[in-house]
Amino acid sequence: AAACHRLCPAVNKSSVLGQCTPGNNLSSAPQMGWGDLGVFGHPAKETPNLDAMAAQGMLLTNFYTANPLCSPSRAALLTGRLPVRNGFYTTNGHARNAYTPQEIVGGISKDEILLPAMLKKNGYVSKIVGKWHLGHRPAYLPLENGFDEWFGAPNCHFGPYNSSITPNIPVYNNSEMLGRYYEEFPINVKTGESNLTQIFLKEGLEFIHRQTKAQQPFFLYWAPDATHTPLYASRSFLGKSQRGRYGDAVMELDYSVGQILSSLQSLGIEKNTFVFFTSDNGAALTSRTNGGSNGPFLCGKETTFEGGMREPAIAWWPGNIKEGTVSQQLANVMDLFSTCLSLAGISAPDDRVLDGLDLTPTGYTLDREMPIFYYRGNEMMAVRVGQFKAHYWTWTNSMEEFKQGVNFCAGQDVPGVTTHNQTEYTLQPIIFHLGRDPGEKFPLSVLTKEYLDALRSVSAVVEYHEKTLVPGVPQLNMCDQAVMNWAPAGCEKLGKCLDAPKSKPWKCSWPH
Amino acid sequence: AAACHRLCPAVNKSSVLGQCTPGNNLSSAPQMGWGDLGVFGHPAKETPNLDAMAAQGMLLTNFYTANPLCSPSRAALLTGRLPVRNGFYTTNGHARNAYTPQEIVGGISKDEILLPAMLKKNGYVSKIVGKWHLGHRPAYLPLENGFDEWFGAPNCHFGPYNSSITPNIPVYNNSEMLGRYYEEFPINVKTGESNLTQIFLKEGLEFIHRQTKAQQPFFLYWAPDATHTPLYASRSFLGKSQRGRYGDAVMELDYSVGQILSSLQSLGIEKNTFVFFTSDNGAALTSRTNGGSNGPFLCGKETTFEGGMREPAIAWWPGNIKEGTVSQQLANVMDLFSTCLSLAGISAPDDRVLDGLDLTPTGYTLDREMPIFYYRGNEMMAVRVGQFKAHYWTWTNSMEEFKQGVNFCAGQDVPGVTTHNQTEYTLQPIIFHLGRDPGEKFPLSVLTKEYLDALRSVSAVVEYHEKTLVPGVPQLNMCDQAVMNWAPAGCEKLGKCLDAPKSKPWKCSWPH
Repeated sequence: AAACHRLCPAVNKSSVLGQCTPGNNLSSAPQMGWGDLGVFGHPAKETPNLDAMAAQGMLLTNFYTANPLCSPSRAALLTGRLPVRNGFYTTNGHARNAYTPQEIVGGISKDEILLPAMLKKNGYVSKIVGKWHLGHRPAYLPLENGFDEWFGAPNCHFGPYNSSITPNIPVYNNSEMLGRYYEEFPINVKTGESNLTQIFLKEGLEFIHRQTKAQQPFFLYWAPDATHTPLYASRSFLGKSQRGRYGDAVMELDYSVGQILSSLQSLGIEKNTFVFFTSDNGAALTSRTNGGSNGPFLCGKETTFEGGMREPAIAWWPGNIKEGTVSQQLANVMDLFSTCLSLAGISAPDDRVLDGLDLTPTGYTLDREMPIFYYRGNEMMAVRVGQFKAHYWTWTNSMEEFKQGVNFCAGQDVPGVTTHNQTEYTLQPIIFHLGRDPGEKFPLSVLTKEYLDALRSVSAVVEYHEKTLVPGVPQLNMCDQAVMNWAPAGCEKLGKCLDAPKSKPWKCSWPH
Repeated sequence: AAACHRLCPAVNKSSVLGQCTPGNNLSSAPQMGWGDLGVFGHPAKETPNLDAMAAQGMLLTNFYTANPLCSPSRAALLTGRLPVRNGFYTTNGHARNAYTPQEIVGGISKDEILLPAMLKKNGYVSKIVGKWHLGHRPAYLPLENGFDEWFGAPNCHFGPYNSSITPNIPVYNNSEMLGRYYEEFPINVKTGESNLTQIFLKEGLEFIHRQTKAQQPFFLYWAPDATHTPLYASRSFLGKSQRGRYGDAVMELDYSVGQILSSLQSLGIEKNTFVFFTSDNGAALTSRTNGGSNGPFLCGKETTFEGGMREPAIAWWPGNIKEGTVSQQLANVMDLFSTCLSLAGISAPDDRVLDGLDLTPTGYTLDREMPIFYYRGNEMMAVRVGQFKAHYWTWTNSMEEFKQGVNFCAGQDVPGVTTHNQTEYTLQPIIFHLGRDPGEKFPLSVLTKEYLDALRSVSAVVEYHEKTLVPGVPQLNMCDQAVMNWAPAGCEKLGKCLDAPKSKPWKCSWPH
């Protein structure tokens, strides 16, 4: 199992234009959980920069990702659409989480319009730093999909691999590889030492400086790998945390966000740069010694419980977002698509359904709310409307996996809810009041008026959603060893091309 | 099952004296959990005043109570000693939580010296507002034990009772009752409306104003009932929370703390008033719809897991405690005894073992740490030394209670840890690293060097503790219907005396 993180978009409409329409800087931390930040209650309190970001900006306490796994979550962020619409899901098996490992054949569909492509209309230059995760075959890469620059990798940094069997993941500079993880970009699996986060930070800061100097508006999508396993940190952070190596990685990420914010300030562009920090899914609870925290929430990554999909979220924009504010608005990564476009003065595409709202008109607390849909692959497992969350299907993982020690809900067990069979409740959904019971421990009694009222309002939402939903063509169904990163563009110059095996496609197997 | 809350001591050394030695204001919230405050990560973020208190002061993230139940926890706060030393425990059965219901015969021992009695040496006037809980028979009441003033009740506000069977709890003003809960002091169980917190607030504020005017140093122990069941709030708070009635009570408590702090400021005595906020035990997780939150921690009240004993804690003292600081110091309610004495310039008693440290010398982060002992009644269940917590016994509640739906760990289950049998691990304790694993989910493997090193250091602490421990005479063993609040002092004037039944003492039954 795998997933990723992102630090959310910063869009900068350069200060020279003398306009307040901001730049954007979206920054996303892979699978950092809701409870991992000091400001969101982690007892170690080791995130002074993110805590300060919240104190200077706005904390969003009802903010969600679109999927409990990396790739679909990132696809939703950049398209403003649910994975079931933009194709980042699978129909191999019911309710399966799928992502983009090296053997994936598909990637982001050409029918989708990504945020950087839209931002180009008003002269924004866009860069992604870090993990892409929307497909690694040539046509799916960032520069083919609206980004002007890229420094990072198409897949997670799993490895090291024996390159006669599996290639190590390439690191790209724009459209050509520079080397591979564990080779030119070392990660010491034993000591956990790697400079990757520092490299990503430097790339991000250089881009900001360059764009500021050139007086060009920019969009930086800073999506470091750190906090995803295999865990690493650079030497000055290793061993610094009370929380072990995961904490070291969190501290380095926190430091990096602080550096980005203080750069914006020292360049004098903080008042027209919108910065948003979030994660791509909840913390994975499977790691015995190096896991993140989902605070008071149930379960984690891979699940459609709150721990899998409610995310830490901080919006920062001095002079525009009042310091120390809290928004209870139900919000979602897909809102960032609509919000960034609005900030850049660009109309949203009108030829497709968008699943986000423009959060700006009333200061990130609107008079209306979108429901939150919790999907696993092709199935809507649950939906939140206001304070009520109705589960139509429950599943954590299979009993077989669980018996092998894979537990997505370590230490937690809610009978009938954290089930190891896919359990259908479509006729009588399990409903929680997330205000009184954010941990999803106490289902409302179906005999109460409160249950019936909640069911009525949720049912209307679900009925409309199902009636109007046109699923995208699923992109994550086919796998093939031949499509792995054997010979990425630029490998010739470096002498790093590997021979691909013969194509033998198969239906990818997604166990959970 | 029952328990209580306190808002921790404020000691004020009146400003006229021109000294910096502070007053104290200790304020304690009954069974508010670690995760209930916005600043400690609750998603509802409904505690703006406590969050601001933390922003202006110091958050202590490794702060503990001395017992997972109200009475012993409060006895420890006021004596600076573990319940097993000060007698606030039972030997009826092994490892049982005991408190002071109406039928309790015992109370705080005359051999104990309470904080207000010590503070008197330097001219402090002390008041307790709210719940006392150290025994309700005449000799055990606050004014017999060092306090100069009292407004509140000796026991929890359970009820309403049929007074021919059980008296309602009396509310005292100093040494005479003013009436009873549900009678002169109404609590509408159906609507949840009651003005009690407002009354307690008024009493606290009046005392502060009076002492300031009289230029006399003071100690206020503000210990409202609110957030303990049966839940109530005054009309302006009812229905205001996203969290239901528990949240309403939290909001009113939060408001009250804000009022106390702003009073200190408007009186100009904030720079010589030390204010501390904490709770007496973790949130009870038994309530299906109105429970508190212990954030990322395991289980709750009644248990010796982190959820039962790690507490929200905020120290506030403008000009003396730097704003926005965090202390990782392992600390405990018993430290408040030693700390308050130090602030008041009074030497601690040297004829007895004290279990707390003076936290002031190095700004609440010392170069040494006391271990944390987790007791249930007469048994040391666990001990924390540094980041390591070793469980020598585990128990939540009996399988019989559990099957009846009483669950101290709702939604949580760690095999071999959240046991329903009293399970002995004294030969090979279960050890957690609370830095990496604050939720006590992943015991260290006994085969590792880390386990053996941790065991060695913990064992040395335990050996010394056991060798030197002289248990106090247990005060919570005997019960008797005849000792209930039938005819408290002052009942004659009010015509509120009730006839006591004949004395028939029995050994109290403490089920868990």
